[in-house]
Amino acid sequence: MNKTALNKAVLSLRKSIGRDKVITDPYMLDQFSRDETSDISEFPAIVVRATSVTDVSKTLAICSKYNIPAIPRGAGTGVTGGAIPVKHGLVLSVEQMNNIIEIDKENMFAVVEPGVITKTLQDAALEHGLMYPPDPASLDSCSIGGNLAEGAGGPRAVKYGTTKDYVTGLEFVLPNGAVINTGGKIVKNATGYNFIGILVGSEGTLAVITKIYLKLIPAPPAVIDLLIPFDSIDKALNIVPLLLQNRIIPSTIEFMEEDAIKLVKEFLKEEIPFGNAGAHLLIQIDGDSEDDLMKDLDRLNNLINTKYEIIAANTKIQKERLWKTRRSIRESIKNASSIFFGEDTVVPRSKVPVFIKDIKTYLNTESLRSIIYGHAGDGNVHINILKGDMNIEKWNKLVPKIKKYIFKKAIFYGGTLTGEHGIGLTKKNYLNLAVSKEGIELSKRIKAAFDPNSILNPGKIF
Amino acid sequence: MNKTALNKAVLSLRKSIGRDKVITDPYMLDQFSRDETSDISEFPAIVVRATSVTDVSKTLAICSKYNIPAIPRGAGTGVTGGAIPVKHGLVLSVEQMNNIIEIDKENMFAVVEPGVITKTLQDAALEHGLMYPPDPASLDSCSIGGNLAEGAGGPRAVKYGTTKDYVTGLEFVLPNGAVINTGGKIVKNATGYNFIGILVGSEGTLAVITKIYLKLIPAPPAVIDLLIPFDSIDKALNIVPLLLQNRIIPSTIEFMEEDAIKLVKEFLKEEIPFGNAGAHLLIQIDGDSEDDLMKDLDRLNNLINTKYEIIAANTKIQKERLWKTRRSIRESIKNASSIFFGEDTVVPRSKVPVFIKDIKTYLNTESLRSIIYGHAGDGNVHINILKGDMNIEKWNKLVPKIKKYIFKKAIFYGGTLTGEHGIGLTKKNYLNLAVSKEGIELSKRIKAAFDPNSILNPGKIF
Repeated sequence: MNKTALNKAVLSLRKSIGRDKVITDPYMLDQFSRDETSDISEFPAIVVRATSVTDVSKTLAICSKYNIPAIPRGAGTGVTGGAIPVKHGLVLSVEQMNNIIEIDKENMFAVVEPGVITKTLQDAALEHGLMYPPDPASLDSCSIGGNLAEGAGGPRAVKYGTTKDYVTGLEFVLPNGAVINTGGKIVKNATGYNFIGILVGSEGTLAVITKIYLKLIPAPPAVIDLLIPFDSIDKALNIVPLLLQNRIIPSTIEFMEEDAIKLVKEFLKEEIPFGNAGAHLLIQIDGDSEDDLMKDLDRLNNLINTKYEIIAANTKIQKERLWKTRRSIRESIKNASSIFFGEDTVVPRSKVPVFIKDIKTYLNTESLRSIIYGHAGDGNVHINILKGDMNIEKWNKLVPKIKKYIFKKAIFYGGTLTGEHGIGLTKKNYLNLAVSKEGIELSKRIKAAFDPNSILNPGKIF
Repeated sequence: MNKTALNKAVLSLRKSIGRDKVITDPYMLDQFSRDETSDISEFPAIVVRATSVTDVSKTLAICSKYNIPAIPRGAGTGVTGGAIPVKHGLVLSVEQMNNIIEIDKENMFAVVEPGVITKTLQDAALEHGLMYPPDPASLDSCSIGGNLAEGAGGPRAVKYGTTKDYVTGLEFVLPNGAVINTGGKIVKNATGYNFIGILVGSEGTLAVITKIYLKLIPAPPAVIDLLIPFDSIDKALNIVPLLLQNRIIPSTIEFMEEDAIKLVKEFLKEEIPFGNAGAHLLIQIDGDSEDDLMKDLDRLNNLINTKYEIIAANTKIQKERLWKTRRSIRESIKNASSIFFGEDTVVPRSKVPVFIKDIKTYLNTESLRSIIYGHAGDGNVHINILKGDMNIEKWNKLVPKIKKYIFKKAIFYGGTLTGEHGIGLTKKNYLNLAVSKEGIELSKRIKAAFDPNSILNPGKIF
């Protein structure tokens, strides 16, 4: 980075958007040097805390003028390094653009700034009897802008889809500072190219999103959670197509395999429900009334063949007990091995059992412990591999080999590298396994169409 | 068009993809000179009837080499001129690529070629108990490839969304002949740029789609249709948010205003149900069982305040009678005035009544008859304006003025030019009302990223 250009940019930024929004104090900069991705950090040269679209536009224009990389940042909860300020650029934080501009009950839309925390939006919608369905695991701390950037999903995707299915309008800023509006409170739109379609999931490499129109749906008044134990992961997963084909569409179908259950049991040092089962399914069903849910539950009972009892929860305390095992997985993993990595591969639903079997078999030959769980309804498999007491040199050499094996297997079964986390930095070396040379070249040309000087989040994805 | 280049291209095409697939006979070419758009046609120089992705790839490579415009064409049912071979180029027909490659019942996906007729796919899915929801009015004759190109919708969009919500994978060919695959039988995907997002709705200007992965859903076993008459269009439309907020999500909510009902009555020369009402709503509700529907019907009856009786239909004959008025609109319009035009503007749901009122008031001052109907659930308003006995010179002068008025009003209310028909040729002069200069420039750069020599469907959209 050219020092003189940087100094000029700082002066220019202070003058045009205000001294208090431009941060160069090393102590403050440190907080923006990482996201939730393990083992990666880089110090930014400048942080801008934008409070308006004008701030974003002016900041990007100045970055373009002085050729300074601009790294857009929401709440910094990404797990593939998307918000890491590579090349010591400028972090453009939209965290303070966190207004819910409108909940339009009549038309069932929300209009929000990108810094709004996902849960905050969900709560605001619920006050009007409405629901914003996408529910990434980090929903208490992640922001809507980041959800759009990464194409975030969550357990409810099986019934309700992912972030992209709810965005109907955007205001966004190009790297040259131009502000573009598209769509709005409309669910149908065939007017020119669908900018929304390419921007959602583009990981902050094409434009900075400054306003978002989101479709809401009426909140289901009744919700029930079920914990269903099985002898084996295969038996558990075989239930999924059966439910869906019989029009029981749960809002979530989470699975945990035996090793995951065992690990949590070790960690919690307490009895957990069905701690000796070979697999758990955690199913949530929502509907119009308790009666409807009871009917679904009856049908589900008839379809499912398990020797175990099914636990149903509809109070908050019951639900918490029921989800405790699932919610303790990540902590249990960290506790068992401070060094580990996780991937969120996706395969067609029917291929999940054989995919898991292949991964387990392979990792056994390497004597590595793996913890697998995920979203059975949509084939999104979270694979965590623990270093344990393996020698670090051996581990470091092995990791790329294992990743490649996992990704190649996912692709072999008709799937791909990531369902909801994005490529970012951590998977960019593997993108060519899923996207052909021509596809990557096309991606680079699309990048150049939005960002000819490669100012925005350079070095991510490809 | 350079005559020598054309001749060379024809020779090259015949040699590389086969003589029988390359058509230059004027009688045959004539059929490809138009689509369902009134008053526009242009003769192509060549037609290629591709039967495989290889044909498409080779044809595009030859077009690129000889700088010949290639105009992709499905079933030719578009209504905005998207398939018209401007610049006397080569029509690349994928009509014969009409194989349903697979209906995967377990994973609930269809894999199809672009020439498959939408209804054919729906029937094939239904044989497996599955549904492909998007239902453009022309579903008996339009093709899936065209549906993707135009971002087609249909009445069921209110509950089930539009074409874009079902595409999970594509094989497509760039103008240089490169074949790219993306996605597959997976509903979650955050692996690199979402090519699907930008290709759906790009009106054949970016790439030629040769294989499509579509998400299917379990078909609802019970369906009921309702005709609900009201005194006025306002009263009819006010029901819509009430239903949705009370979690009655019909699969369709169609509306017809008084002038539309009157016109059909004149045309059919017979009594039609509630022919004197001020407005009709046609509601379709689907669900798990007749019992469920009856419960919805009870709730709906309690919410709706109309002095008229509600007609319910659940047999085929009853349904046909009930939909007859709605299905006769287009024919009635053509019968009343051979010269007319139609737009499919979209506004936020709550703005439909005031939008219609404004349009009617404006057209009254011009003494023009207008027939308005559409999809009340998603704010998609079909406005048809009849020349009647107006002097043709006056009409021709007036049409652009009226279109501009309609589009500006739609935008004023937070809507846009087209919900499901696309821009094509007929709306391209108005695109700048909805998309800013910067947005159009960005679109042109995206176009260049896919198609640097502007070979594919040039002159459409912008």
